[in-house]
Amino acid sequence: MDIDKIKGLDEKERELFKYDLEIKKIGSRNFLSPLTKDKKIYKSQMVPENERVLAFIDKSVVDTLKSKGVDIPSFEKAGPRENLFFEPGETVSAIVTCGGICPGLNAVIRGIVVMNHYRYNNQRTLGVSYGYAGLVKELGYEVKYLNPANVENTQLRSGTMIGTSRGDQDPVKMVDRLVELGVNILYTIGGDGTQRGAMAIIGEIQKRNLKISVVGIPKTIDNDINYIERSFGTETAFSEACSSIDSAYTEATSIHNGIGIVKLMGRESGFIAANATLATNQIDFCLIPEMEFRMTGEGGFLDLVEKRLKKKKYCVIVVAEGAGQEFVSDPQNLKYDASGNVKLGDIGVFIKDKIGSYLKAKGVEHSVKYIDPSYIIRSCPPTPNDSIFCSQLAQMAVHAGMTGRTGMVVGYVNGQFIHIPMELATSKRKKIDINGQLWLSVLEETGQPPVI
Amino acid sequence: MDIDKIKGLDEKERELFKYDLEIKKIGSRNFLSPLTKDKKIYKSQMVPENERVLAFIDKSVVDTLKSKGVDIPSFEKAGPRENLFFEPGETVSAIVTCGGICPGLNAVIRGIVVMNHYRYNNQRTLGVSYGYAGLVKELGYEVKYLNPANVENTQLRSGTMIGTSRGDQDPVKMVDRLVELGVNILYTIGGDGTQRGAMAIIGEIQKRNLKISVVGIPKTIDNDINYIERSFGTETAFSEACSSIDSAYTEATSIHNGIGIVKLMGRESGFIAANATLATNQIDFCLIPEMEFRMTGEGGFLDLVEKRLKKKKYCVIVVAEGAGQEFVSDPQNLKYDASGNVKLGDIGVFIKDKIGSYLKAKGVEHSVKYIDPSYIIRSCPPTPNDSIFCSQLAQMAVHAGMTGRTGMVVGYVNGQFIHIPMELATSKRKKIDINGQLWLSVLEETGQPPVI
Amino acid sequence: MDIDKIKGLDEKERELFKYDLEIKKIGSRNFLSPLTKDKKIYKSQMVPENERVLAFIDKSVVDTLKSKGVDIPSFEKAGPRENLFFEPGETVSAIVTCGGICPGLNAVIRGIVVMNHYRYNNQRTLGVSYGYAGLVKELGYEVKYLNPANVENTQLRSGTMIGTSRGDQDPVKMVDRLVELGVNILYTIGGDGTQRGAMAIIGEIQKRNLKISVVGIPKTIDNDINYIERSFGTETAFSEACSSIDSAYTEATSIHNGIGIVKLMGRESGFIAANATLATNQIDFCLIPEMEFRMTGEGGFLDLVEKRLKKKKYCVIVVAEGAGQEFVSDPQNLKYDASGNVKLGDIGVFIKDKIGSYLKAKGVEHSVKYIDPSYIIRSCPPTPNDSIFCSQLAQMAVHAGMTGRTGMVVGYVNGQFIHIPMELATSKRKKIDINGQLWLSVLEETGQPPVI
Amino acid sequence: MDIDKIKGLDEKERELFKYDLEIKKIGSRNFLSPLTKDKKIYKSQMVPENERVLAFIDKSVVDTLKSKGVDIPSFEKAGPRENLFFEPGETVSAIVTCGGICPGLNAVIRGIVVMNHYRYNNQRTLGVSYGYAGLVKELGYEVKYLNPANVENTQLRSGTMIGTSRGDQDPVKMVDRLVELGVNILYTIGGDGTQRGAMAIIGEIQKRNLKISVVGIPKTIDNDINYIERSFGTETAFSEACSSIDSAYTEATSIHNGIGIVKLMGRESGFIAANATLATNQIDFCLIPEMEFRMTGEGGFLDLVEKRLKKKKYCVIVVAEGAGQEFVSDPQNLKYDASGNVKLGDIGVFIKDKIGSYLKAKGVEHSVKYIDPSYIIRSCPPTPNDSIFCSQLAQMAVHAGMTGRTGMVVGYVNGQFIHIPMELATSKRKKIDINGQLWLSVLEETGQPPVI
Repeated sequence: MDIDKIKGLDEKERELFKYDLEIKKIGSRNFLSPLTKDKKIYKSQMVPENERVLAFIDKSVVDTLKSKGVDIPSFEKAGPRENLFFEPGETVSAIVTCGGICPGLNAVIRGIVVMNHYRYNNQRTLGVSYGYAGLVKELGYEVKYLNPANVENTQLRSGTMIGTSRGDQDPVKMVDRLVELGVNILYTIGGDGTQRGAMAIIGEIQKRNLKISVVGIPKTIDNDINYIERSFGTETAFSEACSSIDSAYTEATSIHNGIGIVKLMGRESGFIAANATLATNQIDFCLIPEMEFRMTGEGGFLDLVEKRLKKKKYCVIVVAEGAGQEFVSDPQNLKYDASGNVKLGDIGVFIKDKIGSYLKAKGVEHSVKYIDPSYIIRSCPPTPNDSIFCSQLAQMAVHAGMTGRTGMVVGYVNGQFIHIPMELATSKRKKIDINGQLWLSVLEETGQPPVI
Repeated sequence: MDIDKIKGLDEKERELFKYDLEIKKIGSRNFLSPLTKDKKIYKSQMVPENERVLAFIDKSVVDTLKSKGVDIPSFEKAGPRENLFFEPGETVSAIVTCGGICPGLNAVIRGIVVMNHYRYNNQRTLGVSYGYAGLVKELGYEVKYLNPANVENTQLRSGTMIGTSRGDQDPVKMVDRLVELGVNILYTIGGDGTQRGAMAIIGEIQKRNLKISVVGIPKTIDNDINYIERSFGTETAFSEACSSIDSAYTEATSIHNGIGIVKLMGRESGFIAANATLATNQIDFCLIPEMEFRMTGEGGFLDLVEKRLKKKKYCVIVVAEGAGQEFVSDPQNLKYDASGNVKLGDIGVFIKDKIGSYLKAKGVEHSVKYIDPSYIIRSCPPTPNDSIFCSQLAQMAVHAGMTGRTGMVVGYVNGQFIHIPMELATSKRKKIDINGQLWLSVLEETGQPPVI
Repeated sequence: MDIDKIKGLDEKERELFKYDLEIKKIGSRNFLSPLTKDKKIYKSQMVPENERVLAFIDKSVVDTLKSKGVDIPSFEKAGPRENLFFEPGETVSAIVTCGGICPGLNAVIRGIVVMNHYRYNNQRTLGVSYGYAGLVKELGYEVKYLNPANVENTQLRSGTMIGTSRGDQDPVKMVDRLVELGVNILYTIGGDGTQRGAMAIIGEIQKRNLKISVVGIPKTIDNDINYIERSFGTETAFSEACSSIDSAYTEATSIHNGIGIVKLMGRESGFIAANATLATNQIDFCLIPEMEFRMTGEGGFLDLVEKRLKKKKYCVIVVAEGAGQEFVSDPQNLKYDASGNVKLGDIGVFIKDKIGSYLKAKGVEHSVKYIDPSYIIRSCPPTPNDSIFCSQLAQMAVHAGMTGRTGMVVGYVNGQFIHIPMELATSKRKKIDINGQLWLSVLEETGQPPVI
Repeated sequence: MDIDKIKGLDEKERELFKYDLEIKKIGSRNFLSPLTKDKKIYKSQMVPENERVLAFIDKSVVDTLKSKGVDIPSFEKAGPRENLFFEPGETVSAIVTCGGICPGLNAVIRGIVVMNHYRYNNQRTLGVSYGYAGLVKELGYEVKYLNPANVENTQLRSGTMIGTSRGDQDPVKMVDRLVELGVNILYTIGGDGTQRGAMAIIGEIQKRNLKISVVGIPKTIDNDINYIERSFGTETAFSEACSSIDSAYTEATSIHNGIGIVKLMGRESGFIAANATLATNQIDFCLIPEMEFRMTGEGGFLDLVEKRLKKKKYCVIVVAEGAGQEFVSDPQNLKYDASGNVKLGDIGVFIKDKIGSYLKAKGVEHSVKYIDPSYIIRSCPPTPNDSIFCSQLAQMAVHAGMTGRTGMVVGYVNGQFIHIPMELATSKRKKIDINGQLWLSVLEETGQPPVI
């Protein structure tokens, strides 16, 4: 059946049909989980081996598929299984954190250690130093054993207690190291680059026919990993950003015709900017990468700012770092960082300068205060709600790892933890749906027109 | 078809079939929404009049229903509709807040005012003083007009800017007052008692054949309203509770055999206690109303505390106020407050005393530190994430109200805003599913046995 | 000269003349400080050996003394000295924390460790476990070496990383242990009971003619140690109390005739209550141990509350735990805790009940919300300003210890760090001067009459 | 006597002798203060009309002066006086805030309003809009009456509720406006520029022989006003800066050879940087305007950073914006802002770039994270301790104003509130004494050498 011929599906919905949503396992031994055997949890809390969760829940979509005789796609549900592939008590795990830091990394690390130690009786959990670099023996970084004592309260601090780094490493060398260390399960905490690195490791593992599982925990402060409704750290980031916005608001409202501008993280997706806008209720304009906007002309951004200023005597603007890149970077001449990310042009300073010169030319007395909190919003401790999410991600990851599942990341869809194939998770960046609920709320809150 | 005969459904699933999930409207005029007319949002953001969202997403449930030929129940999706019943620009709204205060009340109030003023051009939004009492004219409380200026930044403070009170009032008098004030839509922000009061008002409205809509916004810091996955203020409450837990942890770990006990809100449902436990990762035992536990005997609570103390030299306990009521209140002789809630026995002090005397009798030197943050966790400003939720609840409520929908509350299921009939929302209290994901996470995190 | 005959001096001023304000040293070897030798600081930052700071600065007092030919009393100035008694690089220190925990304890501990390690090159600093109990060998607590690595970032957490306990121990046993451990300097961090314990240790040291210094760092969350203008942790405590007050204010202003009551620490001195009152600007009445007040009668407390309620429709009250003890405890029948402190009657609950019954009897509809943050205000991390103070106290203590000074605590008078003999520091409790600036500010802020 | 010939005095001490420390009054009517008349405070809390406080308290200085027969200089003590010049109940006040915003402005404004309203029964307190500009009638800004209701809880927010602006205005026009508004006392809240503006206004008042008092409240987030030991907002600023430092520390310690740099406010004085350094205990180097430093060469800054990095694998640096200006600005070509302040070169970015290129040239793999919190640290609410200070400054200012004192600011010396002539306060900038206690503590804490 040609899914592209079914009417009433949007691009996102079609996309799912292109992927195999089954999760691979590296083998089929059967150890009984100590969770039920030792009665650590209720037996009824175990998840049936093949339970799945619907990917779509809007009735119109469901009905369309039904009428065409197509099954609704579904994801494997996360959670503890009765039968394990790896032997509880004997399994060796390793944890690696890659890329930029993100609130909650230590909470995830701690969670994995505690789950291994207390719930699956595995006393050996290794912390790999400084990202994938720590898996390359010749670079000389040490590996340290983690246990409940040395991870205690680390969840209260941001950063990563085991260190991180950017960039790829040779999968051959990394698998050599995993073998040398006797690792059974590798937990890769990182963004899409990291998970692509994990897939390379898996490729090498398969080549050697090893019984090593690789389970990913998606980390993206921008909340832009595909099919991960919610990412740890994003809530913390936009919560922390609220102080910067309040500062900009306070500056702007303390002077005549004050304009406050805050630049926030968000390379390709504006979740932090949009959520911070909704959380503060102090924003007049929110600019994100997903939207296009004109600077000049009637109804262009500068014109709208001037009008808002005339009406309210102040104006507060949030701009995601990836917004309006056409104004500040030359597509012919892009530069990249060690992780392979494009170096962005500085849209915040651009907007600040343009507003200043525009209003000056118009003879409008004003004052612009520009705030760029930069790393501040990612190097703070996780909010309690994020902390919970980290604990649960860690629990789900260890449950999955112990069953021998591999090549998957722990995802979150329709309010449920699920398993997502790494291929799907890394297939493309998740973005704010300009037609969806979140952006609707932003438009309604700010009163900015949908088309600028 | 007899739903009770279908196998594979749990009680919660069966329950849904007993209710009519359609939402009533008070009439059928058709004003074009200014949201599309004035291009305030993208046209594609409008929700189709009859869009619905599946109530169940576990594939096993869906398949069971399908195999029996039963349709999956669904809820009406919330959001802006193209056609309105009330005339934009002319509609008069009133807002009332009832019961105990809850973080985010002002954010919801502000949200309704801003939506009316800017999005639907309605300049008249009334704040009813001190709950339903403010709708009884003879009590003499004033009604005040709310506008964007006088609600500005109120979202940054907790409490309710319009005041609240407990208890019922005469629906006849309240409807008299609504008519006198020319109110078209009444927004009732409160718990199940408040929404039952709203149903009484609706009954009186129907009796008089009036065209007044009543739309509820569920408020329950305990997160215990049926079919409301998430309630505003709960995240703030458990986030704020984390400081108290950290205090108890700090006290307990600073002395030899220190025991920290924190009592948290949670009359019939332990969501605050369970979430705070997961968020802090500092808890040894979490006691909630949904679980039974023995105090004495091998494997009883006191025995478990002693063992944990012996192992770790400290122990930190969270107890929800409604837990273990069989130990502290006489079912023959219950007392009630003005809202009709049972006055609970003090389980926190009970546990504190019992642990003290038990360990003393055993000759175990120790020190117990007891913390009861009480109102502290509900009278703080909303977390940014709660604040967003409040803004969105307000948006959804006004969208629903303007279409003439009535007798419903704004709900949240499977990650989506929906409309829920007041009957269903007030049918019973939502509780933590002892077999579900949240409690599983708590057991895994604390290591407490499922049966105590 | 009979100081009591000089007019114009108040009791506090006279008192100083009764004490020898010279600080004792245990001997007179002369090692050159590495601070100047290794050029770790500017030479000009060294404090002259005998520099002193005036105890009185009001010109009227100074003039009175001058006219009588009496010298103005002065305290020895704290700070680094050029000549040391103990050999840098070879000195062994021990740190003990006693009594209840207080914000900043870890910052002081860390400060001493860092000063020893980096500035005086002393690699051996011992942490005594669980207070004076840890100095009694037979109790079996271990002693652990502290170094910059294992104290890193501990200043960010409250509590005490080395543990604490209440009560006295046998000085003979404690000195035995100091000798066994080879300790040269003992730093005693604690309140007046702790410093009296330190004097007992010094007595035993003198008896044996040992060369061990004992330097105290005053710890009193109530800020009630004599001649210590400012105590670490007090600012944190009253800062943290502000949230509780804001909660009480929020509760009180959200209901009709709401009354919020907050009970705060302050056994004999009301510094926390008074400062929190000034910091929040939300308080109508502040009750402290230093003031007497009537409950009943015209102009009594209940009457004043009723009048304030009539005027403002809400009322917020702060009461220090030691206020109004005549109402709640029987002087004939006092009870004591392990530290020898009187167990206080619960004035908070008393006031709450009395207000309730008084207003009920008067037919005044109202609602009382009572908040007792208890340990919450002492088990939180130090404010940055407190943290600075802790770092400086630690620096001053180590400077003093290395010179062989003993029997002294580090004090703070007229904005300067000084040395105070333990006898003077423990001679009596410092209280709020009812005629002084702080209480004046409270009366002006709250508008409560000076006499109730 | 030639003060310059007395040995043992430093520059600061000599300076005081050059100024008349007496405070001027505009006249000598005698109204009895309602504070004692209406028994609002204890009579004993009134300050004797001529009470003074010693300016010097180090015994060596006092003895030197005494031996030369010179009186110790003293400041007039602040506080309520029994006799007033202005009639209580009838006095009209105006408040103006000038220059950049500073935490606590609203607390000071609120304090003045409350003191006037409740303590001196003055119902008319005017808020001047947008700084001195608001006193120039033709600019058209409105003046609004302030009262306890409309200033309630404003102290919880930063910024200035009455607005501010930079720059001078014509004193003739401003006095015209004061006369027109019937103002008796003008409270000028601002820095040295603002107080110089106030002196110009006083000049014009004297020229016209008017009975208008002008009382200044020194505002300087940099804490750099002469003879003001402590300025409101500074504690808040350095407290808030701690988060940025913790972020930089977290970033730096999460990567191999991570370097965190934080640029903080401090144009000519490094109080914020120095205090934040002490408060966090996470800093390796603190650079301030008061110190000179070399970038290159053995023992230069870059060399020191490299060595610290080699030792610890990370390095965290705080730099005040005014430090090392010789590296980043051309003294021949300085630029100025509207307040007449020099536009500083960007030392933060300079240092960041230099470290990067230096280490790169040396082949040291590393990563630099740069954080500039900018306005974030000044637009946050005051800490509780700052809030208290603001309340007290406001109380002292109103006490002074009501007695007819003029041409003075409220100061704080040796832990006491005092009156300082505007001439002295604006005579020069206060700086960190490189030989004093604060910088000593910084050197001891960071371990950076005194000479770089």
